[in-house]
Order: sequence, then C-alpha cells, then structure tokens
Amino acid sequence: MLSRQGDLISIGEEEIEALEIGAAILGTGGGGNPYIGKLRALQVLREGRKMRILPLQALPDDAKVVALGGIGAPLISHERIKEGREGLRCIRALEERLGFKIDAIACEEIGGQNAMEPLIVAALADLPVVDCDGMGRAFPEMQMTTYAIYGHRSTPSVMCDLHGNVVIFDHAASELWHERLARACVIAQGGASTLASAPMPGVFVKRFAIPDSYTKAISLGRTVREAQSQNKDPVEAICNFENGQLVFTGKISDVKRELKGGFVAGEAAIDGFDDFDGDLGSILIQNENLVFSRNGRTEVIVPDLIVILDIDTGEAITTEMLRYGQRISVLALPCHPLLRTPEALKVVGPPGFGLGHLNYLSLEEAGDQQDSAKKGARQ
Amino acid sequence: MLSRQGDLISIGEEEIEALEIGAAILGTGGGGNPYIGKLRALQVLREGRKMRILPLQALPDDAKVVALGGIGAPLISHERIKEGREGLRCIRALEERLGFKIDAIACEEIGGQNAMEPLIVAALADLPVVDCDGMGRAFPEMQMTTYAIYGHRSTPSVMCDLHGNVVIFDHAASELWHERLARACVIAQGGASTLASAPMPGVFVKRFAIPDSYTKAISLGRTVREAQSQNKDPVEAICNFENGQLVFTGKISDVKRELKGGFVAGEAAIDGFDDFDGDLGSILIQNENLVFSRNGRTEVIVPDLIVILDIDTGEAITTEMLRYGQRISVLALPCHPLLRTPEALKVVGPPGFGLGHLNYLSLEEAGDQQDSAKKGARQ
Repeated sequence: MLSRQGDLISIGEEEIEALEIGAAILGTGGGGNPYIGKLRALQVLREGRKMRILPLQALPDDAKVVALGGIGAPLISHERIKEGREGLRCIRALEERLGFKIDAIACEEIGGQNAMEPLIVAALADLPVVDCDGMGRAFPEMQMTTYAIYGHRSTPSVMCDLHGNVVIFDHAASELWHERLARACVIAQGGASTLASAPMPGVFVKRFAIPDSYTKAISLGRTVREAQSQNKDPVEAICNFENGQLVFTGKISDVKRELKGGFVAGEAAIDGFDDFDGDLGSILIQNENLVFSRNGRTEVIVPDLIVILDIDTGEAITTEMLRYGQRISVLALPCHPLLRTPEALKVVGPPGFGLGHLNYLSLEEAGDQQDSAKKGARQ
Repeated sequence: MLSRQGDLISIGEEEIEALEIGAAILGTGGGGNPYIGKLRALQVLREGRKMRILPLQALPDDAKVVALGGIGAPLISHERIKEGREGLRCIRALEERLGFKIDAIACEEIGGQNAMEPLIVAALADLPVVDCDGMGRAFPEMQMTTYAIYGHRSTPSVMCDLHGNVVIFDHAASELWHERLARACVIAQGGASTLASAPMPGVFVKRFAIPDSYTKAISLGRTVREAQSQNKDPVEAICNFENGQLVFTGKISDVKRELKGGFVAGEAAIDGFDDFDGDLGSILIQNENLVFSRNGRTEVIVPDLIVILDIDTGEAITTEMLRYGQRISVLALPCHPLLRTPEALKVVGPPGFGLGHLNYLSLEEAGDQQDSAKKGARQ
C-alpha cells in the first residue's frame, strides 16, 4: 500500500548527519542528544537497510501508523546504550497483540534522539517513516503529543527494554494514566526503554500530526552546516530559517540539575554579554528548556521553543550537556499552531508543567507588546 | 471438562467464615486481613453465584489453571476497597491475549485476603478453584510461589486496578523482573491491584502446588471456632491441628512499621509473661512475620510460619493490626516440605529477604537441638 517509490524520500548518511543537527535544535535541550542515535542509524544504513520517508500527503487514509520513541531520562540513554532491537520488538509484540500488520512508523518527537529511533526501527522492519511528528520539538511526557491532545488513545501500547522485558499497556483509564504506568515501568527498567503506541489511521495523522518534521529538521541541519562551511553566522541562519529571534547571549554561570522521578530537572543561570551585558538570564528545565527569563522577567515560555546554541558553532546543547563556562546563544522559535490551541495549551502550555501561575504569551504577541511599549516610550 | 459435580466441594457462608479465620492464621501476619475479602465473598454468594473447590487430584492433566491474587501493600487494600471485578478483568484480558479459555483458578497464597480473591473471581467467571495454593502461607513477593520456584514462567500475566487500567506483562526476562515491573506498576496504581499469571497445566499444578490449602484452611478455622464455642484453648487447638508449638506469650511493647516500596516493613517487640516472664520477644516483618527471636536469639525463621494470635480468642492478628498493649501468643508452625528444598530456600528462606546472614533451621531441627542441649545440661 505504501510502496509507491515515487512518493518515498530516501535517507542516507548525509541526511542523518544533517538530521542530528536539526533534531538537536528542535529538541530545545531535551529528547536526548541525537549523537548516539545517529551512530546507531549510520550502522543500520551500513548494514544495507533502507531508510525511507513518506510525505504526509502521500499517506493513505486507512494506513495503520504506529508512533514510537525512547522513553525515560535522556541522560541514562547516553550511558547505557540500547541493545538495538527494542523498537522492533515493540512493533512485533504490538502486531501480535492487535492481530494485524502495521503500514508505517511515525515519530513521537522530532526533537533529540527520538528523531532517530523511528528511522532505525522502520529500517529494521522494512517500513517507511511518515514525514511528521507529534510535537514539532521535544516534550518530557507521552500525553504531550498532538496525537494525544487531538483525541488518539495511545493504548494498547508496548514497551520493551534491553533486558528483554515486554510490557503491554493494554488499556489505560486516560492518557495521563498511560504516562504514569509507563513512567513507573521505565524507572524499574533502569530509566530508558522504547515504547510503541496504538496505531493511528492515516486520515487522523494527516490532520493532527505536526507536518514535514523530517524534511524540515534535515533542511535546518543543512542550513547550519552551510553557514559553518561558508563562515557565516549559524545562529542568524537558524533564526532566518525558523522565523526565530535571538533572545540572549552569555556565559553559563551555574547549572542545577537532578534526576527526579525519571526526569532531568533543574535550572541554568547565564551571565549576559554583547547586547545583553549586565543582564542575568535563566532557563528552567524539565528534560527540555521550559521557560526563559531575563532579569527575573519571563520572556519565552513553553510550548514555544527555547534553544541553547554554542555561540560559535551554532550547534544545540542539550540540557545534560550544559556546564559552567559555556558561551551560548539563546534562541526563541515559534511552535507550530497545533500546539497553541486552548486544548493544546492545557497539556503543553505552562499548566502542563506545574507552572499554572505563568500565562502563555506567544513569541509574536510578546514582540508586539514590546514594540507598543517602545512606541509608547517614544511618544 | 471440570464439571463433574461429584468432585466439586461447594463453598457457602459457613465455609467463608471459617476460611477467614484459617487464612488469617496461615497468613503469618501478612497477605492482608481477610475480613474485607470475606465481606466481598459473602456478597458474591448472596448474589447467587456458585463457589466451588476442585480437589487437586481431580484436576485433569491438561487443564489450564490460572493463579491470581491481590498484589501490593495489604494496608492499602483495607483503606481503598476494590471496585470488585478487577480479577475478572484480568481473566478476560488474559484469555484474549492467549486466544483460549481457562479451565480453573488457583490461589497464589492461601494466607490472608488472597485466599478470598480466587473464590470471588472464580464465582464471577463461573469457574472452579483448585484446592491448592503456591505458598501454603503468605509471602510478600510474586516469585515466592512453589509455581515459580519449580519452573513455571508466570508471564504473560495481566494486572488490573480499580481505575480500569489493564497492564499485560507479556514477557519478563526472569521471575524477579516480573516482580519488579509489577511492583512498580502497582505502586503507580496507588498500592493495591490484582494480578493473574500465565496458565499452568494441571499436571504441573498437581506436582508442585501446596495441596489441600482450602480444605485445610477451612478445617483450621472450624477448629478455632469449635474451641471458642466449647471454652477450650484455641491456641492449643491450633498447635494440635498444625503440629505447631507455642514459642512465646506476652504483651506488645513497641511496633515499628513503615510503608517502603509498596511493602509494610518493621519490627514488633514483646514483653514476655506466663512461661516467658522476663523474656524479650521480637518479630521482624516484611508484610509477613519473618523471624522470631527471643532475648536476641533467632528461634523461628521463614519459611516456617510465625503466627501472632490474640491470646484470648486465638484469632490471628495481621501485621497492620499490631499495636501497643495487645496480649498475644506466638506460634511456630512447620511449613510444607516443598518450601524446604534447597531451591525453595534460596527464594523463600532467609536469603530471599536480605537475611543471608541467618541460617535456616527447621522447627523440628531446632527442637531436636534444644532437646539435646537440655539432655546435655542434665548429664
């Protein structure tokens, strides 16, 4: 059904290298550093497996699409490498549970190493990956996908670890219950596993997935590499590509970080320089960068993307790689409109992270307010 | 297949009342107080459901037998009553996963409220309960059944809670992994759920289950009730029935108890009186009574049964009901020989509870040593 070669985009080593850079930027600090995922993806390619992306509009309405990804604390998945076939075992166990084959794999989150996982699993299973994802970035919890927000029930799902354990969440009373149970299991399994959710029909994916995630992340990565090779400013190139803005430059003066209930939580403090000399920046973290504040005032807030880049290379620094003394740029990129609806903001806006006291104000609205304030000051 | 009425023993309200007493004694302090289970069992009987016990020897070799029970901290199951059909949902989900119907229910542990759960579920599912269990008492962890010790792999298993969540442990890398994952889930579900394990063939159950658990527990309960009604000493009646011995009488002077990782753990101190005047007794607890010491010397040790009884009524006091000032008898009852093999002692002897520094010495061996010591002293 999905074999029309004309539709499929072939993914090779160059695309994987570019995706590593793009996915790390869209990870907004989370989802894990894609470096190890990249190495695993390259290995799978070198074994002769085919990686193919299916454009979202080419997905048949009745296709059965399974979203999958790693679950757990990214930090752990860097120290304890996957056995390699966890995702494939998820797919096989899910197919056995359901009694039918699935047609395509989708990405839960394009940000971080979860951009690589669907490609690796799909290559092993000889399936295409749909050009989309459920976040357009990274988020720390499973119910934070547009799939879940717009009504997909993600059970029965299957979780596999490197020990060989297979857990089926056959029915969850709610998406939040699914998250709670899976989180408890992943912690018991040592903090990092792979999970494949119940299939979605193609027609649902086309309407509610964040579109073009892979092609966009690869292009974003290429943009950075081009700027680097042409000695142009990669930070500016990213802002132009993603319609983003530079909100801070400075040196990291402190990082608080702890592993809490399977998550990395903490805060980074930044001493400003250049245009931000004398300012104090702060970024609140729960696996991802959640809130950027300048001098105690909130300027960028989840679900808009807060990206920490190495000021020279323009490459993203994930939260577990943050350390004292790094010279960074902080970018704000607008999130996809599907994340800004009232139903989405309840889940992936401030209340979804225990930050109900903060009001979400989109980057563009915040910009307009600042412009008005400046105009007011001038008059 | 299991419908030969001649084999089946009908269970009515009198049997349930007697079972409550017998199961509490065999619970050795754990498995939860059967009182609430009794009320639920009586309700099911009053709804007109049939409860039937199948003698172990009448079980066909190829019967598919599923062991089930509550999992979690007994204390929680007393405060948050079950929805009622958790066990039936386990059976139905397991049958759906396996693709075949099961023939009979078995008991995981005859001690405590888990004696009631199979009867309730089997009545709802219109199945018989085999007259056996996997412990002959109560133990805190799932891998501590004779089923697991003698080679049954308990996955795929199904765990259901009162919220409607259904988790299938489809494959566990080991029985200990099954326990770890189920324990993590039951904690996430609030501390008390119901779990049904993979079916066992009848031939395996006949060889490796602890036999006659229900009929024995019911007779034990009747023995206590008879002694009570005839103003005889129920403690003596129990010792005679179970070939046990009275090891201490006294008043509880202190109870340390905490909820730790889904278990109730702690220690009870007892000031001796009567024959034990001036002695200090101590009982180590992990859901069940694990070790009895007198004046710092270990006298009875798991898997032999340490039973705390109200000194007047002869009724068992479960660990969560222990409190300062209670006047108690402590009985030691020999465990079933299936729990005393080298392979069993690794799992349900001292090493299974982090007590590897203690050597298991059966009640009878300890008695012989004491006799020799006395003889030696006399010579």
